[in-house]
Amino acid sequence: MIPWEDRPKDCNNVIWRYSKNPIIKRNQARNSNSIFNSAVVNFKEGFAGVFRVDDTERNMNLRRGFSKDGINWKIDDSPINFIRENEEIESEYKYDPRVIYIEDRYWITWCNGYHGPTIGVGFTFDFEKFYQIENAFLPYNRNGVLFPRKINGKYAMLSRPSDKGHTSFGDIFYSESPDMIHWGNHRFVMSPGYSPWQSLKIGAGPSPIETNEGWLLFYHGVLLSCNGYVYSFGAALLDLDKPWKVIKKSKKYLLSPQMIYEQIGDVQNVVFPVSALVKDNKVAIYYGAADTVTALCFGYINEIIDWLKYEN
Amino acid sequence: MIPWEDRPKDCNNVIWRYSKNPIIKRNQARNSNSIFNSAVVNFKEGFAGVFRVDDTERNMNLRRGFSKDGINWKIDDSPINFIRENEEIESEYKYDPRVIYIEDRYWITWCNGYHGPTIGVGFTFDFEKFYQIENAFLPYNRNGVLFPRKINGKYAMLSRPSDKGHTSFGDIFYSESPDMIHWGNHRFVMSPGYSPWQSLKIGAGPSPIETNEGWLLFYHGVLLSCNGYVYSFGAALLDLDKPWKVIKKSKKYLLSPQMIYEQIGDVQNVVFPVSALVKDNKVAIYYGAADTVTALCFGYINEIIDWLKYEN
Amino acid sequence: MIPWEDRPKDCNNVIWRYSKNPIIKRNQARNSNSIFNSAVVNFKEGFAGVFRVDDTERNMNLRRGFSKDGINWKIDDSPINFIRENEEIESEYKYDPRVIYIEDRYWITWCNGYHGPTIGVGFTFDFEKFYQIENAFLPYNRNGVLFPRKINGKYAMLSRPSDKGHTSFGDIFYSESPDMIHWGNHRFVMSPGYSPWQSLKIGAGPSPIETNEGWLLFYHGVLLSCNGYVYSFGAALLDLDKPWKVIKKSKKYLLSPQMIYEQIGDVQNVVFPVSALVKDNKVAIYYGAADTVTALCFGYINEIIDWLKYEN
Amino acid sequence: MIPWEDRPKDCNNVIWRYSKNPIIKRNQARNSNSIFNSAVVNFKEGFAGVFRVDDTERNMNLRRGFSKDGINWKIDDSPINFIRENEEIESEYKYDPRVIYIEDRYWITWCNGYHGPTIGVGFTFDFEKFYQIENAFLPYNRNGVLFPRKINGKYAMLSRPSDKGHTSFGDIFYSESPDMIHWGNHRFVMSPGYSPWQSLKIGAGPSPIETNEGWLLFYHGVLLSCNGYVYSFGAALLDLDKPWKVIKKSKKYLLSPQMIYEQIGDVQNVVFPVSALVKDNKVAIYYGAADTVTALCFGYINEIIDWLKYEN
Amino acid sequence: MIPWEDRPKDCNNVIWRYSKNPIIKRNQARNSNSIFNSAVVNFKEGFAGVFRVDDTERNMNLRRGFSKDGINWKIDDSPINFIRENEEIESEYKYDPRVIYIEDRYWITWCNGYHGPTIGVGFTFDFEKFYQIENAFLPYNRNGVLFPRKINGKYAMLSRPSDKGHTSFGDIFYSESPDMIHWGNHRFVMSPGYSPWQSLKIGAGPSPIETNEGWLLFYHGVLLSCNGYVYSFGAALLDLDKPWKVIKKSKKYLLSPQMIYEQIGDVQNVVFPVSALVKDNKVAIYYGAADTVTALCFGYINEIIDWLKYEN
Amino acid sequence: MIPWEDRPKDCNNVIWRYSKNPIIKRNQARNSNSIFNSAVVNFKEGFAGVFRVDDTERNMNLRRGFSKDGINWKIDDSPINFIRENEEIESEYKYDPRVIYIEDRYWITWCNGYHGPTIGVGFTFDFEKFYQIENAFLPYNRNGVLFPRKINGKYAMLSRPSDKGHTSFGDIFYSESPDMIHWGNHRFVMSPGYSPWQSLKIGAGPSPIETNEGWLLFYHGVLLSCNGYVYSFGAALLDLDKPWKVIKKSKKYLLSPQMIYEQIGDVQNVVFPVSALVKDNKVAIYYGAADTVTALCFGYINEIIDWLKYEN
Repeated sequence: MIPWEDRPKDCNNVIWRYSKNPIIKRNQARNSNSIFNSAVVNFKEGFAGVFRVDDTERNMNLRRGFSKDGINWKIDDSPINFIRENEEIESEYKYDPRVIYIEDRYWITWCNGYHGPTIGVGFTFDFEKFYQIENAFLPYNRNGVLFPRKINGKYAMLSRPSDKGHTSFGDIFYSESPDMIHWGNHRFVMSPGYSPWQSLKIGAGPSPIETNEGWLLFYHGVLLSCNGYVYSFGAALLDLDKPWKVIKKSKKYLLSPQMIYEQIGDVQNVVFPVSALVKDNKVAIYYGAADTVTALCFGYINEIIDWLKYEN
Repeated sequence: MIPWEDRPKDCNNVIWRYSKNPIIKRNQARNSNSIFNSAVVNFKEGFAGVFRVDDTERNMNLRRGFSKDGINWKIDDSPINFIRENEEIESEYKYDPRVIYIEDRYWITWCNGYHGPTIGVGFTFDFEKFYQIENAFLPYNRNGVLFPRKINGKYAMLSRPSDKGHTSFGDIFYSESPDMIHWGNHRFVMSPGYSPWQSLKIGAGPSPIETNEGWLLFYHGVLLSCNGYVYSFGAALLDLDKPWKVIKKSKKYLLSPQMIYEQIGDVQNVVFPVSALVKDNKVAIYYGAADTVTALCFGYINEIIDWLKYEN
Repeated sequence: MIPWEDRPKDCNNVIWRYSKNPIIKRNQARNSNSIFNSAVVNFKEGFAGVFRVDDTERNMNLRRGFSKDGINWKIDDSPINFIRENEEIESEYKYDPRVIYIEDRYWITWCNGYHGPTIGVGFTFDFEKFYQIENAFLPYNRNGVLFPRKINGKYAMLSRPSDKGHTSFGDIFYSESPDMIHWGNHRFVMSPGYSPWQSLKIGAGPSPIETNEGWLLFYHGVLLSCNGYVYSFGAALLDLDKPWKVIKKSKKYLLSPQMIYEQIGDVQNVVFPVSALVKDNKVAIYYGAADTVTALCFGYINEIIDWLKYEN
Repeated sequence: MIPWEDRPKDCNNVIWRYSKNPIIKRNQARNSNSIFNSAVVNFKEGFAGVFRVDDTERNMNLRRGFSKDGINWKIDDSPINFIRENEEIESEYKYDPRVIYIEDRYWITWCNGYHGPTIGVGFTFDFEKFYQIENAFLPYNRNGVLFPRKINGKYAMLSRPSDKGHTSFGDIFYSESPDMIHWGNHRFVMSPGYSPWQSLKIGAGPSPIETNEGWLLFYHGVLLSCNGYVYSFGAALLDLDKPWKVIKKSKKYLLSPQMIYEQIGDVQNVVFPVSALVKDNKVAIYYGAADTVTALCFGYINEIIDWLKYEN
Repeated sequence: MIPWEDRPKDCNNVIWRYSKNPIIKRNQARNSNSIFNSAVVNFKEGFAGVFRVDDTERNMNLRRGFSKDGINWKIDDSPINFIRENEEIESEYKYDPRVIYIEDRYWITWCNGYHGPTIGVGFTFDFEKFYQIENAFLPYNRNGVLFPRKINGKYAMLSRPSDKGHTSFGDIFYSESPDMIHWGNHRFVMSPGYSPWQSLKIGAGPSPIETNEGWLLFYHGVLLSCNGYVYSFGAALLDLDKPWKVIKKSKKYLLSPQMIYEQIGDVQNVVFPVSALVKDNKVAIYYGAADTVTALCFGYINEIIDWLKYEN
Repeated sequence: MIPWEDRPKDCNNVIWRYSKNPIIKRNQARNSNSIFNSAVVNFKEGFAGVFRVDDTERNMNLRRGFSKDGINWKIDDSPINFIRENEEIESEYKYDPRVIYIEDRYWITWCNGYHGPTIGVGFTFDFEKFYQIENAFLPYNRNGVLFPRKINGKYAMLSRPSDKGHTSFGDIFYSESPDMIHWGNHRFVMSPGYSPWQSLKIGAGPSPIETNEGWLLFYHGVLLSCNGYVYSFGAALLDLDKPWKVIKKSKKYLLSPQMIYEQIGDVQNVVFPVSALVKDNKVAIYYGAADTVTALCFGYINEIIDWLKYEN
């Protein structure tokens, strides 16, 4: 089950926005400044999610939420309290979570503050208890995104090595792990620069979606205007067995900030996809808008792949 | 007497905005580009004010205004013409004024262009004739704010040493003067970094308000996003006798730019408090929005202090 | 014939906006991300134009358009295909065109990507076939604007030498050519800094308009706020015979970004004039807004010159 | 066996330089621009080493060398040709090698160019055949230094996460691996800032030396002067079992660039230790000077530890 | 009495160096990294001085020294221990001292670390006990230099407002104080840019020397080369009664870094004058070289003034 | 006739230095701070030259010099006084001259200050009277170098478009002129990045030398170290008829700063070739060293071309 709304009559685009966007407003949870860049999954009869909620100190943290329809969400009053297996792993802040079910549990990755941003890793079986394990990588890294299954017998993750600030570069890399603790066999996947909307940096969005044509990856790209960063998003197809091999990536963006809730907010001109729900050929993509609110857009998998193959 | 509007029913915040904001529009005075970051006081039967009016050359200067209700303002057609006691003190530009009554007159401080920004000082008895005296400090300084009475027999001022440009740092300091000309006994008060909304720089807002718990100071703080500065404001309590001793400061912001007139304008995402009118337990805070217009918000002193003490 | 709308009753400004701005929306052409900074001329019974259309890859290119009234435009589905006399002249991108009729043809200049931005030159007789000749200058240059007739027997162009990025400086220069290929006798015309709205950089807008008082030039100017560039525009009068001699320039701006379509978009806070149609004493100025859409404003030549002479 | 020279009579320092420094000149190998930041080990009857030799294209690469006395070296005419187990691991450049014997072979780590700097790993049994395996970490990283034995059953490495350029920050971290391929359990070790000579960034030098008091680590530190970086070096003691726990580190430097061959060269003011040979209580430290030549200095382990404990 | 050496036969310059420069080497005091930018005065039968001695942690502090001839100095093993009248004035570091006798005591000013660099003030009667009083100014300031007598009944100081780092700008200002605590009547004196050697920033050197022609001020100036700052020094004449009025300043430098001890060291290419001893028409200037050692140069007052008046 | 010294016995390099370098010292002319980056030609029985002499204000200007042997030079006491055909061409400064004889006169090009750096052009018939004509290009440009004869009937020049400061980029371009006034047909020649010594920017050195293999061009290249720019030089072969076509360029440098007079001075680590004298197969190259002095090196044309073809 996924939230859905048909394509408007006058729309020719491959992706279209939900008509009642944003679905989550900035002040919707207790003491929140903004709710965005959030990850949802199917859970029991409905949906569960891990939300980036910046509070009114502007601290960045993760909160849990539940929904029956994927659109109307009840978000917790306070951050998730992760149980840490190792007290040495601090977490100065958490943001931009991804959630994906693999084998027996929901794995969560996020940007974790440990002497700089790196990829935090945790899991939950039930969205009641949450466990945090070792950071996947050394700092500085952001946008760590797991594949939904093991590949060649190993866990697999995309990530984007960064620096300590508002990083002005960003390639996507692939890494493998036998145990979710030790990571290696790092492979370069792709760089910014393929077209101007993605000329400064790129980063993986939702977990890749397995298709007959390859892994379908939505990813954000950044253009540096004279007045700052503009975040749009596009798509790529990665090889099923060697996901660091790019089969095709989009020259065009799928969505760019054109609605007022995407253009104005704590950070102007941002659409940032973090989560995708798939049902047969339909996909619903959750994205953060203007680093302030959460929005939703829709598409058909086959159309997106055709667009990627024939119009890019 | 202060302007006032009760808290909206559905609002739980300590501070709430005036429902007809902005109270002063950008083109409201002759040849004005914007009217913001402005200071008002009770005067005679109503209110007087010193307003930052940038003209259509984008020159920054101060103009006088009068109002009967503190909300509807008549602002002069041209800048205040200060009588200078000393012809050597130039003033290349003036902006961000504060006004406060001490003993026998209204003292005005502002950011004064004298081979770079520093703290200009002037006074008026009647809002007809205005006098400018020596700059308080060497350049480079901004946000010079006087206490409303002498402390330990001396005039007292908060200020924020700066550099020549769009300064990327900013601590608040305290200084004393026997005569409003010579300043010394400089003391460090507080730094940015207490929480993210105030992580880049901070600066004093209106003159501190004397309470039983200490001096209540509203101050702005800046967060550096990847698309620029975001100005919010919070509060602090300073020791009554040694005001450089901070009793408490807010981790949360009181107000951040969330309304369209705060988010869009000549500088995006700015709320900048400069003036506060107090009547018993009520306070009306005038603040500049988006460096373009002037807005108003309200609160109760005791609630603000409780919030500061117990929720921060 | 020019598009026209009378000054609103309550408006005292020398320049006023078209009430139905923007006249061209961002998605109005096939596969377009934005349509702005565009140049129009009288053509046959109506109007023709060369439009900057950034596509959904965010590539910058030029497209042709026609209109009967100068307001409602039909823009081509794909970029103009210039016939190049010399295969060695590449053109990695094209943007910010100007068009002007001299003697027997419509000359087009634009910012041309040839190992960096420089001034591309082309022409058309009929808006069917377009020819590209040699770049006028070495990189790095932008805002190359031709005078509408030869001066002292030579073609004359204004331009603004730049660097490779979001250039933070910019003077206007004048150059001459006997043949539209070789350029020399370069003369400095004017610098930024005359007043704050134009303190960072300036650049010529539409082709200068010949008047009894001199060449009337509309030019944009940029102010650097703490949150980025703000583009406004003003006017200058240049000597008819030695156009590098400035007779008068405006301390005030004529128009600054104050409408939401000028304040929000791919680049916030931009009004950027590129084209002016004159009919007797009336002028219609086409300008790009927020690097996203195309807008229109109006004025009377004599009022603008009076304003320039007596209010600046 | 190690090279050695007694402390000069008039010297009171814990570390003293070899009197005939530099031991390796910039042009000493075929087609070399500079030979510095190099690693040596005891090998058979004498010494072997892996040298950073920048050639006259200024390409950075590693060459092998042999010596009978550790002072006079014969360096190969061309770079080491690593046999790669996996053709996907490119190596755009190699520099700043470390070499250490663990269990059955000589392990080599270096800064490896793989879409940015990261830690390359290789080994040799005989200094004839060299093998390269997977990069230890994602980019961007430098100064990867192995411990000379497994700790708690795992290989252990110090490294310094970086960015893509002349990185202006740098903490030392600790990581573990069961197989020299997959790395995890990343721990923060220490930051710059303990004293001014090490205020900008720090990085591990030679492999830590096991002592009764802990692991003795020599590390470089950088001070940012108004004319650039100054590289000095000091020492630290790390816990034997949890080497990310710092027992003591030096406030003073052990050596700073004070000789002309350390002050002048391709990069001014650099002493950069990369290799240490220990014999009983004596240590000989090989260090790069001015990014141009290789030099040698000496000390007694017990004196260095006493200095660290009692004078820092 | 001053140290002296006649002008070399083959020298035509107004200023000439001491033939045995540097007079103080970097390691001459216990635990010193460098000894430079230091201030000396006549004291009893000989000379006393306050020296900037950076130790081997690269901490910056002041030490006392004595000399019989002004050339051979005995410098203390540890920093001066100032007695503070007020425990609230911290001093995170001290550097670049000036010393001058006024009325009854030796006044010392220096760059004092108090939440950033500012001007520290202290005094001694006997070079045995040293007292520190309030900082003269708010941060950020450097190069605070007292006049050798009160002017118009007030203490007078030159200083150079700065920022927190390796400041890239710098004007000289004048300030007055009735009590050495409170300072006001700030006046702009002069800017960089008069000629290229002083195009980036300037700062006062030794205390001004009273002459019939005005106050003779030696001051340093900085040029920004593509490889960093180059510090030279020149001279100016200031009005005796209104010292912020510049009578004449030098277009040429008097001394620039041309000797190897001025070109190489912890900071390349620095000559930095801090102290001048005058005897009749002779002047001996102490200057720091390459931020590493102390050197000496000589001249005749009348020649310097003539050079200033007629060759600049 | 050219100055010459045979290759030292122990030297295997294609280029070798003159044993008595530097041939011109920094103080060799009246009031000079430095003499470097200078151009010489055969003239009458000996040699004439145009020298960059920075004076003790650090102003940059050109002076004339004569020599009998090309090694010992007599340089004028003051700058060349160019006769300007057009009073509108100012010249705020002049530096880095090149001189070449074409047809009937000696043409001089240099970096000319005209509202920023651009290429100044002048000529002399006799080294007595010097004439300045129009600047070749709009600012910002440096390193304008003429070919020694017309190509395809037009004058031809290489140049390197720049920005206003210490430009961090730089490609070489080719331009043509029928009259030395108007320039067009601009062609890209080559970029930095071919190897690390030339990775930041490149610029033409002496006028290209015509050979059977093509135009032999010496050019400088810059590497950005963490402590600044390092200037080396190499060589390229350009097509005789279409000189913007590069036949071959050197991956290796021919000369890099390795002697103390190249490593220390007003700008560290610079060798900068500006002039070449050819006699049969011999070439003598004049180069500036450390932006301070003038030096000389030698080579054989055929060896250089072979090196270029077979070792690069």
